[in-house]
Amino acid sequence: MPLEILLILLILLQYTFIMKHLNVDVGLIGFGTVGSGLAEVLLSQQERLQQRSGLLVRLTKVAARSAKELPARFAGIALTNDATEVINDPDIDIVVELIGGIEPAKTFVLEAIAAGKHVVTANKALLSQEGKEIFAAAAAKGVEVGFEASVGGGIPLIKGLKEGLVANNILSIMGILNGTANYILTRMTDEGSAFADVLKDAQELGFAEADPTYDVEGIDTAHKLAILMTMAYGMNITHKEIVTQGISGIEPIDIDFAREFGCRIKLLAISQNHGEHVEARVHPTMVPNSHLLASISGPYNAVHFSGDMVGNVLFYGQGAGKLPTGSAVAADVMDIARDIAAGSVGRVPSLSYLPEHIQDRGVTPLDQVSCPYYFRITALDKPGVLAAVAEVLSRHSISIESVIQKGREENEPVAIVMQTHTAAESAVSAALAEIDALEAITAPTVKIRMLGEE
Amino acid sequence: MPLEILLILLILLQYTFIMKHLNVDVGLIGFGTVGSGLAEVLLSQQERLQQRSGLLVRLTKVAARSAKELPARFAGIALTNDATEVINDPDIDIVVELIGGIEPAKTFVLEAIAAGKHVVTANKALLSQEGKEIFAAAAAKGVEVGFEASVGGGIPLIKGLKEGLVANNILSIMGILNGTANYILTRMTDEGSAFADVLKDAQELGFAEADPTYDVEGIDTAHKLAILMTMAYGMNITHKEIVTQGISGIEPIDIDFAREFGCRIKLLAISQNHGEHVEARVHPTMVPNSHLLASISGPYNAVHFSGDMVGNVLFYGQGAGKLPTGSAVAADVMDIARDIAAGSVGRVPSLSYLPEHIQDRGVTPLDQVSCPYYFRITALDKPGVLAAVAEVLSRHSISIESVIQKGREENEPVAIVMQTHTAAESAVSAALAEIDALEAITAPTVKIRMLGEE
Repeated sequence: MPLEILLILLILLQYTFIMKHLNVDVGLIGFGTVGSGLAEVLLSQQERLQQRSGLLVRLTKVAARSAKELPARFAGIALTNDATEVINDPDIDIVVELIGGIEPAKTFVLEAIAAGKHVVTANKALLSQEGKEIFAAAAAKGVEVGFEASVGGGIPLIKGLKEGLVANNILSIMGILNGTANYILTRMTDEGSAFADVLKDAQELGFAEADPTYDVEGIDTAHKLAILMTMAYGMNITHKEIVTQGISGIEPIDIDFAREFGCRIKLLAISQNHGEHVEARVHPTMVPNSHLLASISGPYNAVHFSGDMVGNVLFYGQGAGKLPTGSAVAADVMDIARDIAAGSVGRVPSLSYLPEHIQDRGVTPLDQVSCPYYFRITALDKPGVLAAVAEVLSRHSISIESVIQKGREENEPVAIVMQTHTAAESAVSAALAEIDALEAITAPTVKIRMLGEE
Repeated sequence: MPLEILLILLILLQYTFIMKHLNVDVGLIGFGTVGSGLAEVLLSQQERLQQRSGLLVRLTKVAARSAKELPARFAGIALTNDATEVINDPDIDIVVELIGGIEPAKTFVLEAIAAGKHVVTANKALLSQEGKEIFAAAAAKGVEVGFEASVGGGIPLIKGLKEGLVANNILSIMGILNGTANYILTRMTDEGSAFADVLKDAQELGFAEADPTYDVEGIDTAHKLAILMTMAYGMNITHKEIVTQGISGIEPIDIDFAREFGCRIKLLAISQNHGEHVEARVHPTMVPNSHLLASISGPYNAVHFSGDMVGNVLFYGQGAGKLPTGSAVAADVMDIARDIAAGSVGRVPSLSYLPEHIQDRGVTPLDQVSCPYYFRITALDKPGVLAAVAEVLSRHSISIESVIQKGREENEPVAIVMQTHTAAESAVSAALAEIDALEAITAPTVKIRMLGEE
């Protein structure tokens, strides 16, 4: 009776599948800072993870381009220089990609998905730029993609957003998402030092990379904001659609004036959900000291979400580093391992919304954005200058909240510093063009956006 | 061929089960602030929840002792005055208990578990006191118990701790867990007002209950700390084992001196994991302004975890309120609904460790705890008083970090205020007994524990 036998086999197979998967084997591509951190975390926490899940999760194979051997404490883990050996190992359930950058990371991730492996990655550049293709491939193949470590390092904020805030329309996102930039700004603020000096020191101390462009110019922050927006709003967006300005132009004098206005300058990722269209921008921002984001110092990261039900929520922690990032990657590995063991793969959609509910939505053009502004106008100290400036602003419907005028040296340039009420970016651009054309103005006006009152 | 038919039926049954459970029906016991908040959240977010999970989650029946009818927008939801009608409704998958207190909540929860229902609750008093029995019953019956809303209101920190920080040995927990107490302390700090005046005002504004004992005396905070410790360390503990001191004895003068020392007074839950034994205490604490917990103002809550891999992580948000708490309850409901639909009930152990790995561990007696201290000594302003005090402290190995002596009126009582380095509680108790017995001391010394440097 072949049908009976077939059916019995089918049922047995289900249970065999479940039993096998009390062991979950992990392969790792990339053994740099984060990769070795993950190995460390999985090794030192193996017993704890078993006590919390009943599962034995083992790192069994590492692909590293140049490593000759693994440190002695990782004895038993196979080493190869060929990533495809990890991808094609039939015993490996989860492939972790920790090499960073677009290629060959993208190829490895797509090959792993094609081989039916679940994937975990911390690669924000890859997901921001190529996420659509990667998540579509994973959905088609029925495998999971975990990326907790791609935003906010060790902070479990992707899970918080996806599952903890599941019953919320996310109204806004504000984040300090780059530890290097925040470290530099914190030291500039505390020490009164110039950007270039602090950057150089940060590089020597290992807080900034040799090529710091991605970090200090806001590109890394934009990558992360794109990932958060995709999940928070259920929309397609890449970092290329996000207006991005870095901190290399911030001068100590503006940090000092920020302090006088009760603010600190932070590199913020800001997004507002207006329904049909969404704001998305990364730029230095004056944050009032009363806002928790002003208190996020040094290399720490924090993300502030506003939800229609939950109100304000903030997640804080280490945005980078070997073990913190390893902790987040390990959490993804455990999530997938639990789904493998429980037979519930795909239980939570990777991007928080089901693929068919992820839509294209417009990004608000920058000139339609409104916020309060800080201006530092450099003008000859002559009678009538402030009146002329005020007239231009008034004509563009920009109202002044407060003004500080420092120094008094007849016919020498002085700083006129002001804070405006909420104003439209288009009006501000037009007004500043007129102001900078005034005869008494001796240098282009510096403009820094401020965080509006909540 | 009955065997064939049986097997076919078995397989069909599995799929029928899966299909049925694309609908998940929820029953609610209690329709007060949080109960009506949950109804609001599930109704307003129903479409979003479906877009994020593929599941239609419906609140179908509410039990409320005194309600005659539900507001019109909840048309279609059955109302009963009898909780057992919710518990015994065969169509209901998840029973949400939101009446609070020990009884009859405990009976309802145990009856729901016995009836094979999954349970979600926000009841921290119940879980802290009766959790062991409830979680054992749920494990025996194979149902889940969700309790995200029991600690930190809307903040998704239970999930963060259980899943996001799964690969960490939690080394310490520090939290502002009671919004009422934090609101009162914030206003006392900002306004210089006395505790009793702010409490009265808070009661009139609805920020404090008619009987504020649980909130201001730290009992509610201790309930929540017990729940966090159970999950963070995998240990059995109830709030009765936690040394608990409230804020009703805090005077404006101590808030002022705290400010001079660069600190704010907060009602903190503090736990340190020493391995074999753990510290657990709730008391007013002087927190340095440089610590993020000092910036948590008004009715907000925050919890700071330190993990051996992740380092410092903080979760912040609204610790109470109708919709924030409803958001957290809804997140639990969705988690369970996903497990029902995926056939993965029990995927994550309710208490983060598997029941067999939750152990008894000792709680450090208070007199073995060490921290820096603040003392306010009231003494006649006579020569030699400070020398006498310093001699006693020195003899008990308590070293002074700084001293402020205010006022100078011969033979009148003045305040001698000091901050110590880390000292043992036992030494401090012995020293203060001696100091208070000195002839020049005219009132018992006020002692407030300080947060140690990280």
